[in-house]
Amino acid sequence: MSTPVAADAQNKVAAIIGGGVIGGGWVARFLLHGWRVQVYDQDLSAKNKIKAVLENARASLPKLCADAMPAEGELIFCDSIALAVTGAIWIQESVPERLDIKQTVFDEIETSASTDAIIGSSTSGFMPSELKSGRKHPDRFFVAHPFNPVYLLPLVELVPGEQVNADKLNHAQNILEAIGMKPLHVRAEMPAHIADRFLEAVWREALWMIKEDQATTQEIDDAIRYGFGLRWAQMGLFETYRIAGGEAGMAHFIAQFGPCLEWPWTKLMDVPELTDELVEKIASQSDAQSGQHSIRELERIRDNNLVDILCAQKNRNWGAGELLNKHDKRLAELKAAGNQQSAAE
Amino acid sequence: MSTPVAADAQNKVAAIIGGGVIGGGWVARFLLHGWRVQVYDQDLSAKNKIKAVLENARASLPKLCADAMPAEGELIFCDSIALAVTGAIWIQESVPERLDIKQTVFDEIETSASTDAIIGSSTSGFMPSELKSGRKHPDRFFVAHPFNPVYLLPLVELVPGEQVNADKLNHAQNILEAIGMKPLHVRAEMPAHIADRFLEAVWREALWMIKEDQATTQEIDDAIRYGFGLRWAQMGLFETYRIAGGEAGMAHFIAQFGPCLEWPWTKLMDVPELTDELVEKIASQSDAQSGQHSIRELERIRDNNLVDILCAQKNRNWGAGELLNKHDKRLAELKAAGNQQSAAE
Repeated sequence: MSTPVAADAQNKVAAIIGGGVIGGGWVARFLLHGWRVQVYDQDLSAKNKIKAVLENARASLPKLCADAMPAEGELIFCDSIALAVTGAIWIQESVPERLDIKQTVFDEIETSASTDAIIGSSTSGFMPSELKSGRKHPDRFFVAHPFNPVYLLPLVELVPGEQVNADKLNHAQNILEAIGMKPLHVRAEMPAHIADRFLEAVWREALWMIKEDQATTQEIDDAIRYGFGLRWAQMGLFETYRIAGGEAGMAHFIAQFGPCLEWPWTKLMDVPELTDELVEKIASQSDAQSGQHSIRELERIRDNNLVDILCAQKNRNWGAGELLNKHDKRLAELKAAGNQQSAAE
Repeated sequence: MSTPVAADAQNKVAAIIGGGVIGGGWVARFLLHGWRVQVYDQDLSAKNKIKAVLENARASLPKLCADAMPAEGELIFCDSIALAVTGAIWIQESVPERLDIKQTVFDEIETSASTDAIIGSSTSGFMPSELKSGRKHPDRFFVAHPFNPVYLLPLVELVPGEQVNADKLNHAQNILEAIGMKPLHVRAEMPAHIADRFLEAVWREALWMIKEDQATTQEIDDAIRYGFGLRWAQMGLFETYRIAGGEAGMAHFIAQFGPCLEWPWTKLMDVPELTDELVEKIASQSDAQSGQHSIRELERIRDNNLVDILCAQKNRNWGAGELLNKHDKRLAELKAAGNQQSAAE
């Protein structure tokens, strides 16, 4: 174990291009794992946004780890993309979801980045082929789509697109695992990757319910968090339904449940128009539901709950908890390797 | 508080018609809260099924309560619906999802039940108006749609339909709360109520992904349980997105996210045909994912995880955890009232 760990430890430099909530979450992931993080954002307010995200991350992420985390890395704000990517082995782009903006950023990254660097995009809307088109070294471009809060939720959808370089993929996975994440290799190129297709489908249903006064935001949230949300935190969809099918198995479950899909639930199939009226209705219902808390308060509540839910699963070594236990071991090995190296120097 | 509690305590008799996994979950909820439970199921195997559910419930539900639960009630298997409903104040129907079967069961219930009894249906597919049609006392019929495992998940969708008798609704809510549940009054009559519309939408997307070899059951489950599933266990959809919108609020979030809905993701809009081939593909992927565990083992894993996740939220007095803390108080008051009554006798 000691050689790759030591090699890895020698060059832990990440570049974060775009410092909003998502970019800030990436900053926190790397920084709290001892990486030097070089940030570029043209918006001067990015510094404060990242500071706020870091504050949340420092208050929560260490609680997921059995031992003390590595000493924080150095955080550097850079005046150009060229400076930010210099020496970085991971470059993460989290700029606004417009392909022309992303392409311009990639042009600048390609000019200055090491050819060995992995370039990840946080995009939820674009597919790898769209990002790679016209690139000199397309092999090192990945969609690396994380989930908010990035510093706590392990999932990152890692989409190489149709041409896969196995070495680059493996390298990318190793780096993401080193910062405690669960890289899910998405094998197919498709709009919205995997998770956001589900989120879209649910969001569309929710919009219909609110538009037609069938349910409020509060009622919808309660329908999720007192019921199937609790199941999905640990098992997801299919393992849960496998149990529901009983000893007769999944095929039996599908035979029971499947035909419902063909019922004429036409509402499911259309998209409601996002009129000002509908937007206002959602916003005011959300105010009534959650307006007693500031966003900062809600962030802390969410993070504390996530920490507790994740630690509960850690105790059982299940799902995300199993991942966290493995990560504890990895951090302990890194520390041991570091001590050995110090002793040898 | 003491009068209704004492009144409630005097007549805690529930009838459970249909003893599958869902019926068995209802049996466990009532029985472990000290109710006498009278069961009818024409299938002789129901006894064993209920026994298995009860074993799971006894191993998990008490862990959610701060103090010892009430002494278990008496469990009686009856030879007819008429016998089962005699003296019951709550009658729960969980027979197969065919309207003709349900109507026959309701005919028999109406003949023998007290006119004060509430009659709940576990149906996910039928709407209250379909159940109430032709009934002598339609006011006491509700859809009371629970979620598996019924003995642990608090949510029950309580749908009175268009004609609402406020007293009956209130009475039904009180009884469900007394057995630790979260009755969500679903104000609109609509196919699939609230939660199953979301489950349907997600299930349909998942079928497409598997059919088209975009993802396996394992990859889909991981995309959920390492990411948004963890968010939904505690906050649901809208409160989570409210945070993502930041201080700019929900309207800002919708402006950013909404337009994606109109992209031509036509796959979302169709229903894949459930061919034998597709069913076999799902079943074999599910075997590869979870086949190392028996269904009984998976049930225990699921239940232990749910207990841990729920207790974590109890510590924070949030969401389902807040409900459980309230329920602890209710149980303590009941116990105190019972002690007082014993002393007076």
